[in-house]
Amino acid sequence: MTQQLNTFFAAMADPTRRAVIERLACGPASVGDLHAPHDMALPTFMRHLGVLENAGIVRSLKKGRVRTCHLAYEPLIAAQGWLAWQRHLWENRADADDAT
Amino acid sequence: MTQQLNTFFAAMADPTRRAVIERLACGPASVGDLHAPHDMALPTFMRHLGVLENAGIVRSLKKGRVRTCHLAYEPLIAAQGWLAWQRHLWENRADADDAT
Repeated sequence: MTQQLNTFFAAMADPTRRAVIERLACGPASVGDLHAPHDMALPTFMRHLGVLENAGIVRSLKKGRVRTCHLAYEPLIAAQGWLAWQRHLWENRADADDAT
Repeated sequence: MTQQLNTFFAAMADPTRRAVIERLACGPASVGDLHAPHDMALPTFMRHLGVLENAGIVRSLKKGRVRTCHLAYEPLIAAQGWLAWQRHLWENRADADDAT
């Protein structure tokens, strides 16, 4: 769990990788379609995709010449749960102050 | 917003920094109290605290010889909102598959 949160949060610290997640949240996509909106060389983009795959957030399957990617939801749900837990703690503490 | 998410997620990619957030979610604490549970030198710990302050997640106030830290909630709420949005997208897409 600790390692999963480490790699998930590290992967999400980059806007290109977050854009890939936003696209895949709408449905599976080929590597070509994922790369198209990004003004960067394919090898650079593939390194970002590799970070997401290594973190277990994206999975891919090659069929013929097309590699299709889809989201793996568990790490995102775990991270969301951790953040929700922190929020629950501060919203329910007895000495809650209004400092922001 | 993009920069806030970049620095928030990067800051959360470390278990020591997440532990500090978990502690501060329960209420403000002095630097000494925050450092106590961590088996690391104070300067190393202070670098972690510096990352959290630079990311705008932790704010601190010095009164006499004691520096007290508290959570700044906005970046956490923004990150939680981004994750919730991704989840909403995939849970509501028309072609939802059951791949996980």
